[in-house]
Amino acid sequence: MPVRPENAYQARLLRLLRDEGPRSRAELGEAVGLSRSKVASELDRLTELGLVESAGLAASRGGRRSSIVQLSSDIRFVAVDIGATSIDVAVTTGQLEIVRRASEPLDVSQGPKAVLSEVLRLAEKLRAEETLHDLHGAGVGVPGPVSFRDGVPVSPPIMPGWHRFPVRDVLTQALGCPVLVDNDVNVMGLGERHAGLARSVDDFLFLKIGTGIGAALFVDGRCYRGVDGSAGDIGHISVDAAGPPCACGNIGCLEAYFGGAALARDAAAAARSGSSPFLAERLARAGQLTAADVAHAVATGDPAAMELIRNGGRRVGQVLAGLVSFFNPGLIVIGGGVAGLGHALLAEIRAVVYRRSLPLATSNLPIALSELGKDAGVVGAARLISDQVFAVESPPALLPGERV
Amino acid sequence: MPVRPENAYQARLLRLLRDEGPRSRAELGEAVGLSRSKVASELDRLTELGLVESAGLAASRGGRRSSIVQLSSDIRFVAVDIGATSIDVAVTTGQLEIVRRASEPLDVSQGPKAVLSEVLRLAEKLRAEETLHDLHGAGVGVPGPVSFRDGVPVSPPIMPGWHRFPVRDVLTQALGCPVLVDNDVNVMGLGERHAGLARSVDDFLFLKIGTGIGAALFVDGRCYRGVDGSAGDIGHISVDAAGPPCACGNIGCLEAYFGGAALARDAAAAARSGSSPFLAERLARAGQLTAADVAHAVATGDPAAMELIRNGGRRVGQVLAGLVSFFNPGLIVIGGGVAGLGHALLAEIRAVVYRRSLPLATSNLPIALSELGKDAGVVGAARLISDQVFAVESPPALLPGERV
Repeated sequence: MPVRPENAYQARLLRLLRDEGPRSRAELGEAVGLSRSKVASELDRLTELGLVESAGLAASRGGRRSSIVQLSSDIRFVAVDIGATSIDVAVTTGQLEIVRRASEPLDVSQGPKAVLSEVLRLAEKLRAEETLHDLHGAGVGVPGPVSFRDGVPVSPPIMPGWHRFPVRDVLTQALGCPVLVDNDVNVMGLGERHAGLARSVDDFLFLKIGTGIGAALFVDGRCYRGVDGSAGDIGHISVDAAGPPCACGNIGCLEAYFGGAALARDAAAAARSGSSPFLAERLARAGQLTAADVAHAVATGDPAAMELIRNGGRRVGQVLAGLVSFFNPGLIVIGGGVAGLGHALLAEIRAVVYRRSLPLATSNLPIALSELGKDAGVVGAARLISDQVFAVESPPALLPGERV
Repeated sequence: MPVRPENAYQARLLRLLRDEGPRSRAELGEAVGLSRSKVASELDRLTELGLVESAGLAASRGGRRSSIVQLSSDIRFVAVDIGATSIDVAVTTGQLEIVRRASEPLDVSQGPKAVLSEVLRLAEKLRAEETLHDLHGAGVGVPGPVSFRDGVPVSPPIMPGWHRFPVRDVLTQALGCPVLVDNDVNVMGLGERHAGLARSVDDFLFLKIGTGIGAALFVDGRCYRGVDGSAGDIGHISVDAAGPPCACGNIGCLEAYFGGAALARDAAAAARSGSSPFLAERLARAGQLTAADVAHAVATGDPAAMELIRNGGRRVGQVLAGLVSFFNPGLIVIGGGVAGLGHALLAEIRAVVYRRSLPLATSNLPIALSELGKDAGVVGAARLISDQVFAVESPPALLPGERV
């Protein structure tokens, strides 16, 4: 197993170098509140452990030139983003920059054995190109509910055969490094926190609109998962008690109105009813419609497609407005495949939230589309595991509710 | 100004003694992870500062008997619970036990000067009976939104004249001790956390159903206030877009359906329509009805009153079900005046939440009525200020998102 920092100062130095890049010894000492000699001894120890290295001398600040330190260029993380119909595997540096990447179409319903052996095959392929480097950990996102503590999916609706499959333990064994598993929405939220719009916002919501709809909550810069790991699972919040039936067995759930599946259904209905010649032609050609077809229709100015987006955006906005009053976040980032519908969807969501949430909670609340796009998943997966690897193994015991 | 702990170990010792009561030096050393000699020197320093004192010798554990330590019996906190129509002031020990208490009917709409001078009069009266003790701080709850950082109410609907009035600074000046101000729902939630059902639950929701409806969110044992301090303000979440108009200008808000004001309105309507002879008689006698009348009607088995509770409970449950899916708490505690409606209300709320939230989020979710009742406000106010007083003045700088 790879080495870990030995104390909280070393952990802080590693995270600082991960998030801010190379820094002089003097800057690092100031940032973590250590004297010049103390920071030097912690950095020397991190160098011995192979976690940091020298990167030359800083520009003079008047006295002796301070030397620049960076994370060891040998550090590698594996980041895995398992989607409903594809897997993405990346290798990153300690600073979570993607150095290699591979992607395969593969349906998650093939089950854990088939999917994880493909994950391992891709990871091995990428590692073979990086033989000189040390694998320090792997982060994994899966498209369903996860018990974060146990590292297993829990009753994931679109992942037959994965219920309580020991994903974390199987990959830990196979890769020989620490592994963490979380649901894809939390992982994408971590990506936004690391390198996206939420970089400087501690309390925010990430909203994924894909085949389904889910949220990730961040409190004080950390992902809040709830007591059972199901926090943010908003796809089945009731929008209208007299609404359409949902696949979950209830009626009027948000996902019964919007998300990739509902959108494909409504687009097909619009095509068949004759209200959208554009969608009718696409349907005739392909036999089915997807959110991407609706996006194309919107781009051509198709009124029926615009109406679908407006209706969906209104429903999402309706749920989000309540959550904003409740949670009072500092930012909402919207990502996922359906977010590709872009500004028409965003405009509708904004209109409802700004009109319907508590004024105090929206006076200064940006709602924006993700800028990371497809990278959010792998960057977030690398961030997930690096947060564990760049922390002391057993943090000092805190009293309940205490923060010292 | 009173003394504060000088380092994180001292702060941890003080909180441990506050929450767990007198402890032997040996137990304290184990709990905070300090050697026998180190914990002795921290406790000696806290004794010099007048914050802890000896309380005799512990039972023998085989070797030398360890001496018992407790918070200094000289420590006093003032706890203030400003309600819509009354003020409660209490004096507590360092362990937040109420030693003296006074209460006056006073309408908060009288404005900050009248209300705060009455608060100070009661506080002075109680302190005069406690002349030998040191006032270490005061916590204050007010019935409206608060900027916690600034210590001022912000556009509080039922508190005319209070908008941005410097409640914290005025009381700090007058009392000569640290003061913190928060909204009444957060303060009641802190009371539940300290001495109620949430004592051992880190992530929970406190729901207050009084004249209005509000929630307090606890994450990791700490109150989460949101970026503008408005988190938990759920009274104006939309329940039905085609619902009745709300005092806030929107339609179909939760408070337009339930809470003390809506209940009084609906009870009067039931009385006038002849559907409840019990309520009709009460209305004729008193000229108006309150939630207490409905509670009495329910106690006599009045079907119209039962129906009001069921309808209200269903609406509250509907909103709560969505929040449970989103937040995945480990416990929900329901308090406030209308909670006096008791088990009929609780049963309806439970039925909707358990049926309508994500199964994973409710498989192990107790929903219970507060056991603290009227004490929740003052206990929470004392807890609020003690959390600040029993902490180091400026905690060591943490990196963004870091917990060491």
